[in-house]
Amino acid sequence: MKAVVCHETKLEVADVPDPVPGPGQVLLEVVRGGICGSDLHARRHADQLADLAAAIGYPDVMRPDEQVVMGHEFSGRVLEYGPGTRQAWATGTPVVSLPMIRMGEKVQMTGLSAKAPGAYAERVLVQESLTMDVPNGLPPETAALTEPMAVAWHAVRRSGVRKKETAVVIGCGPIGLAVILMLKARGVKKVVASDFSPGRRALAARCGADVVVDPAVEGPWTGFEESSYITDANELFDLALDTMGKLRRVPKLPWWQVLRAAEAAGATPHGPVVFECVGVPGIIDQIINESPLASRVVVVGVCMEQDSFQPAMAINKEVDLRFVFAYQPHEFRETLHLIADGKVDPTPLITGTVGLDGVATAFDVLGDPEKHAKILIDPVSDVTTL
Amino acid sequence: MKAVVCHETKLEVADVPDPVPGPGQVLLEVVRGGICGSDLHARRHADQLADLAAAIGYPDVMRPDEQVVMGHEFSGRVLEYGPGTRQAWATGTPVVSLPMIRMGEKVQMTGLSAKAPGAYAERVLVQESLTMDVPNGLPPETAALTEPMAVAWHAVRRSGVRKKETAVVIGCGPIGLAVILMLKARGVKKVVASDFSPGRRALAARCGADVVVDPAVEGPWTGFEESSYITDANELFDLALDTMGKLRRVPKLPWWQVLRAAEAAGATPHGPVVFECVGVPGIIDQIINESPLASRVVVVGVCMEQDSFQPAMAINKEVDLRFVFAYQPHEFRETLHLIADGKVDPTPLITGTVGLDGVATAFDVLGDPEKHAKILIDPVSDVTTL
Repeated sequence: MKAVVCHETKLEVADVPDPVPGPGQVLLEVVRGGICGSDLHARRHADQLADLAAAIGYPDVMRPDEQVVMGHEFSGRVLEYGPGTRQAWATGTPVVSLPMIRMGEKVQMTGLSAKAPGAYAERVLVQESLTMDVPNGLPPETAALTEPMAVAWHAVRRSGVRKKETAVVIGCGPIGLAVILMLKARGVKKVVASDFSPGRRALAARCGADVVVDPAVEGPWTGFEESSYITDANELFDLALDTMGKLRRVPKLPWWQVLRAAEAAGATPHGPVVFECVGVPGIIDQIINESPLASRVVVVGVCMEQDSFQPAMAINKEVDLRFVFAYQPHEFRETLHLIADGKVDPTPLITGTVGLDGVATAFDVLGDPEKHAKILIDPVSDVTTL
Repeated sequence: MKAVVCHETKLEVADVPDPVPGPGQVLLEVVRGGICGSDLHARRHADQLADLAAAIGYPDVMRPDEQVVMGHEFSGRVLEYGPGTRQAWATGTPVVSLPMIRMGEKVQMTGLSAKAPGAYAERVLVQESLTMDVPNGLPPETAALTEPMAVAWHAVRRSGVRKKETAVVIGCGPIGLAVILMLKARGVKKVVASDFSPGRRALAARCGADVVVDPAVEGPWTGFEESSYITDANELFDLALDTMGKLRRVPKLPWWQVLRAAEAAGATPHGPVVFECVGVPGIIDQIINESPLASRVVVVGVCMEQDSFQPAMAINKEVDLRFVFAYQPHEFRETLHLIADGKVDPTPLITGTVGLDGVATAFDVLGDPEKHAKILIDPVSDVTTL
């Protein structure tokens, strides 16, 4: 079959052996693949990713000298079952799958390892137990966005954000935009988005951001002075005195109920929920320094370099840093249903489609944030829409 | 009155003006003061602390060239009321207070600002609304530990630790020990403590740590291999496949209930709750690198220097970093009651008592972790027990 092979940073269409489904596996016809930011990173800096994964016990992430078919976001159709499968779906059934597959003893990351070729190809192998049929006639283009949307859904869930809280999304690349979509799907009332690129700011607005700012002009914290967020120590001290005043007015409460009563009355400060979707050195330090007190910062952007910050400032401001990675399988499944049921519409993310021949070009144009967010691959098409 | 004055890093007993209670204030006779690690830091590096506080809008932390009476941990007796006070307690009533006081327009930090002299003195001013009477005849030595114990109680509460989780306390100085005490008071079944000092390890055991390790010999993570914690990627992948297997066995559940069911069945990995109580550069990076996946790290130790870490590793392992500072006023009050009701006994922390004349010596001996944790000050005594 035809596939895009990455080798020593080059991306070329080649004929590769037809994949054969092993035990528990299903062979899919790829209908749409998606190009992820981590693919762009893996192409140029595979060793960095591989070393990091090896440090936590997964030694099989692609290396530059290997021949790798990337692609871990995709939708497809059932083509052929391997031995020992349940075979619940008829041939041709539209499905999506988590990009993980058992190859012998070990589970491999599909599209990020030479041992598990991905979806930049006409066909791809998936694990039957990680595969699910696409409900409600959802178009394959939209279904192919399940994976990146699941990343965003996981980040939003792990943030614990509530509807009345303000969410701030720093960086409106594909994942930042997906986070905005999921925040609005969850009913968060006020979502502030920030990006240097006018094109991405326009997309952020299309994805539902309530306030969109250009950080070259103003920070995303503008307007927070009038909010209930605490931005300096004096307000914090005043809150403490006020809290104790409130406690005195309820002397009939037994002491072990006072704490809950005080918190219910708003005695504990809490800041906005911030989603860091940039992933460059210095951005975490900047957020710690500039955000209101008691902000919860969800770090979604992947900064591969060593980074620096001042712990004492994070302590003074009682910052939470919650680092997030991928999603749980049940979150992936929930994401598919949220999309298929119309709770969230991820189609604004799609800014282009290419055939296999156009993948190298797509990688190049994705370097420019102005025009593109998510580019899909249609393996049997030779039409490029960029 | 007599007080210990800090000036250009020197600590000397001096005669200072008698404090006079202003509006809303109460004058206390100091019965016991406590020496805090941040006092040691403020003596030598006041500018560092002051710059940090100024950055969040509090410009009045002590500077080296000011004459400052430190001491923000204390218990005392009511001596005299200022104007506009409720005067609910008779003269001589034993009380404790949060170390914050309104001086004119602004609230000041008692014992850390030249504008609000602290308890290294015969008498100290407090805010009546932040003061509470000591219940149950609690001895003044124990009541004086309310403040540091409140710091630990806040850290434990903010960690969200549950009884069945394992807690790991890195560093067994006074705050690490207080955290151990509060973890056991909360009913946490397994508390692992780690410190290079044999003296502190012995204190950790006295405070109730279930496992005490010497990090020069073994890490606090030893034995975690056999636990339910996930330490490498393969286990994580296996969990994902297992989760999806479980999801398939409950096909009758509507999809929007699947997520909760999966989480209830243990599909989301979670690591131990780690309390970082050291506060030196590199320790956060080390914890991120060595701890099991999905650890919640509560950062209590104050590292004043710029620090570095690898965000991508924190992401890969889905680490939470929760930075904590001080306590809420209602947590301070709850701490007093937890101690007075015998739910927690902080007296193992007390390793010495000095008079005002002995404070400079106490600062020196606190530099050696082997012997001392908390040294109290009895302002009217000239006996030193070190």
